Amino acid sequence: MGKHKYTIGVDFGTESGRAVLVDVATGQELATAVHLYKNGVIDQVLPESNVRLEPDWALQDPDDYIEVFRQAIPAVLEESAVDPADVIGIGTDFTACTMLPIDQRGTPLCMKPEWRANPYAWTKIWKHHAAQPEANRLNEIARERGEAWLPRYGGKISSEWLFPKIWETLSDAPEVYEAADRYLEAADWVVLRLTGEERRNSCTAGYKAIWHKRQGYPGEDFFAALDPRLRHVVDDKLSREIYPLGGRAGRLTPEMARLTGLRTGTAVPIGNVDAHVSVPAATVVEPGRLVAIMGTSTCHMVLGEEEKVVEGMCGVVEDGIIPGLFGFEAGQSCVGDHFAWFVDNCVPPQYHEEARTRGLNVHQLLEEKAGQQQPGEHGLLALDWWNGNRSILVDVDLTGLLLGATLATKPEDIYRALIEATAYGTRVIVEAFDSSGVAVNEIVACGGLPERNKLLMQIYADVTGRELKVAATSQAGAFGSAMFAAVAAGRQAGGYDTIFAAAKNMARLQDVVYRPNPAHKAVYDQLFAEYVRLHDHFGRGENDVMKRLKALRQRVLAGS
Amino acid sequence: MGKHKYTIGVDFGTESGRAVLVDVATGQELATAVHLYKNGVIDQVLPESNVRLEPDWALQDPDDYIEVFRQAIPAVLEESAVDPADVIGIGTDFTACTMLPIDQRGTPLCMKPEWRANPYAWTKIWKHHAAQPEANRLNEIARERGEAWLPRYGGKISSEWLFPKIWETLSDAPEVYEAADRYLEAADWVVLRLTGEERRNSCTAGYKAIWHKRQGYPGEDFFAALDPRLRHVVDDKLSREIYPLGGRAGRLTPEMARLTGLRTGTAVPIGNVDAHVSVPAATVVEPGRLVAIMGTSTCHMVLGEEEKVVEGMCGVVEDGIIPGLFGFEAGQSCVGDHFAWFVDNCVPPQYHEEARTRGLNVHQLLEEKAGQQQPGEHGLLALDWWNGNRSILVDVDLTGLLLGATLATKPEDIYRALIEATAYGTRVIVEAFDSSGVAVNEIVACGGLPERNKLLMQIYADVTGRELKVAATSQAGAFGSAMFAAVAAGRQAGGYDTIFAAAKNMARLQDVVYRPNPAHKAVYDQLFAEYVRLHDHFGRGENDVMKRLKALRQRVLAGS
Repeated sequence: MGKHKYTIGVDFGTESGRAVLVDVATGQELATAVHLYKNGVIDQVLPESNVRLEPDWALQDPDDYIEVFRQAIPAVLEESAVDPADVIGIGTDFTACTMLPIDQRGTPLCMKPEWRANPYAWTKIWKHHAAQPEANRLNEIARERGEAWLPRYGGKISSEWLFPKIWETLSDAPEVYEAADRYLEAADWVVLRLTGEERRNSCTAGYKAIWHKRQGYPGEDFFAALDPRLRHVVDDKLSREIYPLGGRAGRLTPEMARLTGLRTGTAVPIGNVDAHVSVPAATVVEPGRLVAIMGTSTCHMVLGEEEKVVEGMCGVVEDGIIPGLFGFEAGQSCVGDHFAWFVDNCVPPQYHEEARTRGLNVHQLLEEKAGQQQPGEHGLLALDWWNGNRSILVDVDLTGLLLGATLATKPEDIYRALIEATAYGTRVIVEAFDSSGVAVNEIVACGGLPERNKLLMQIYADVTGRELKVAATSQAGAFGSAMFAAVAAGRQAGGYDTIFAAAKNMARLQDVVYRPNPAHKAVYDQLFAEYVRLHDHFGRGENDVMKRLKALRQRVLAGS
Repeated sequence: MGKHKYTIGVDFGTESGRAVLVDVATGQELATAVHLYKNGVIDQVLPESNVRLEPDWALQDPDDYIEVFRQAIPAVLEESAVDPADVIGIGTDFTACTMLPIDQRGTPLCMKPEWRANPYAWTKIWKHHAAQPEANRLNEIARERGEAWLPRYGGKISSEWLFPKIWETLSDAPEVYEAADRYLEAADWVVLRLTGEERRNSCTAGYKAIWHKRQGYPGEDFFAALDPRLRHVVDDKLSREIYPLGGRAGRLTPEMARLTGLRTGTAVPIGNVDAHVSVPAATVVEPGRLVAIMGTSTCHMVLGEEEKVVEGMCGVVEDGIIPGLFGFEAGQSCVGDHFAWFVDNCVPPQYHEEARTRGLNVHQLLEEKAGQQQPGEHGLLALDWWNGNRSILVDVDLTGLLLGATLATKPEDIYRALIEATAYGTRVIVEAFDSSGVAVNEIVACGGLPERNKLLMQIYADVTGRELKVAATSQAGAFGSAMFAAVAAGRQAGGYDTIFAAAKNMARLQDVVYRPNPAHKAVYDQLFAEYVRLHDHFGRGENDVMKRLKALRQRVLAGS
């Protein structure tokens, strides 16, 4: 048996970057390091210049990404005591759409003194929401023109995605647009920095930039209809060269080798996105098993052999998750956030005291109390729209609903009802896939929630009627990046030739399986029918009261 | 100017009795005394025998009523230092329907050793809910027979009322029914004890016993359809002699004079009901002004010159509130209870701490925070059905709804939304009256809430578009009884000849007037339209999800 080889995966999140060092043969995780971004999410004032930002802005400093490499990689090398010569690859994944303007040499405009005080020169991260007017207008024009790509995105392009963000800059700060040689996803920018190669990945291109492997980008007439200056935006500011996931972007430059402590020439895969890279980390590289990445929100990923139009998806992209397959993405906006909101705002002191006395956190206490109930016992039903509905209604203006409360309703009743509501939301997505010919036979969960809340997992199994399994890794993003790094290195170097082989050898599931309880499923079928009826009533236009209340709120706030 | 004369009003509540001594000329309240019932609400085991009660039972010990006279009347005499010779009347009001079986001499069966261990021999109080099966059956039969009196009660007789309670005893304990010489409202029994006279009042007869001044009771065929043994229930166990409010029932017996310290012969008015007696105490003795008695729940009382059928009323009774007028009653099941539930179950520790630090209670803190908002700002809408809907839908199986929540929703937002929901519920009632020809031009509030929550009062004015005024007395029940006592004494004795004259001289309003803010009213008109749409959707059969959830809950609890 030869000497063990290792790869490093680096997951760039919203507040920090996380590196994990993995044994390529076994998938064992030897070391982890997290580096907090010094400037974090910039949503109040720019660093140094103190320029104030408008509400809905969210920026990052690309220098913070380099610092992750500088700090976290030496840290995992040191902790694991692995010889850098045995690290055969380093892979990365990023939030998306997180994008930045760069100059001809790849330097972010915000790193140049002349642009440093201009907010439009910085990285706009995924949750920068200031391009909503541009997104609205873009959708209007696309609908009017009957753009064929619109159904692939559930009929709506999000303000979080690439073109609204670019258009926002063109509208508000044309000088920045002009000065930008190109726009890059941060996922591709870190790869450019590691390797010196610009290799735009098929995942962000497909899910965030309306790119299609066969049909390419939307036509120039469409972009011109947005703004004549955008007619050539793809050729001027982007590129039509898109690389499928699973390939090698290049090799580590001497400069970055010095900065990280790795060897020059270490293989670097095509950049990837946090949620999407988690799919093979959860062992899924084939159709039929849905991966639910469950944290503050949930991403649902499933693979198919054919392109299908599924209602209200976030997107379907060939090579978007696993090369050679169509990756389907859906999402729920409010899952962990939902329970956190409830615990922060709605749980009375006696519960906090009981939890403290018993050495539990409040979530654990509520889970315990809620777990003593039978399905249907609390008499409540909720719509999980506290943060809008991402799939399948694709409507940010929907809001939460709780029905069935009485004077005997207790906090644990509402907590359980909120868990159930997110489970019903998942079932709506699962059924939309299934009925459109994208099979979902089983669910594999990863992310923070499945570890922490077993009641939630059982309820999801009971509500969806699917077995739920849980990925072994607790850091699926970084782990998946380490898997793709092993593929980039290749079998010759001690890695793998395909992500399928990497998944087979490196990724694992936990032993626990949550199986649907038939008696519970029968009750939840009745409750789900009630959920769907309310979902359609308030979500499909029978009564748009939620939108009218939101619009009234806006008018009141604007007027006061 | 002659010597001042006084009357005493005694309000028999659920947990205690309250006496107030009032100056007849000025309405000044000179002394108050409260006596807690020793046996309180008996809902677990009978005193002495320790016989266990079923759930939904709620009894009282009539001896506790006598103790109120024995304790509270000497107390107010002592505190005020008024000469008993100057007390010209003593009036009483009671919860209703609170009823008891008595023997030929007026002794409650439960006071007789041979019946003391039988729950059916005790006073069943208003919230005794064990007669629900009988009420359901009674309503079914009344509907089938097309009984003409049913619309006067919103189409439904409550399980809290007289005939379901009597029928329950006949069904379950026929020996008690047999042994009872008569059934009396406790309101009339205390008058019987004070005076030796049985004088059944028109208020409880009309609102709780389906009696009508011109048409009398339901026909014998109806009672026989319930149970052949009930055919002659009115003549066997009740009486057809009903006395309008405002008259004198009799005069204090020597025995009761000794017990209370008052003079033999002191005038005693016809018995009355707590909510109804509050109407003149709130200065209202004429059509056009609605009295809202606001506590844990709200009673709405308004007077009319003509009998009208108003949707979903609790009843319309000639002489039922003020002699010579039709008294209309409606109700909301969950008002103060609503806010108490919220504070007990849904307010996080930091709010409790802030309140403690600032020397406020949590209600005050929430009121302060909620009061800083504009109408419509929180984006929420609630249906105030946490305890069902008494008017106008008359449906105990409806439950609460909260719509519009987001991750930014704060406790004060929900608190304000719940206040507004009860205000919308009041507006539904007000508009039902108004559109049926029973004018409501102004609202006079009394009870515990109006004193404590000024934000609530302003919201009610803004939502209903009516001026809200507040009764000067904070104990409207006892005060109203003192007013009727002055009428029973008559002008010759230093009282008044009519309740109109008593109201003019004794009852007062506070100086504060809550006037609708037109800008707020405009926003609330929009929100009320949304409320009505949800109210009708969930309350009138478009989607009976609330009932189905309740039924499912019952099945689950029964099966587990």
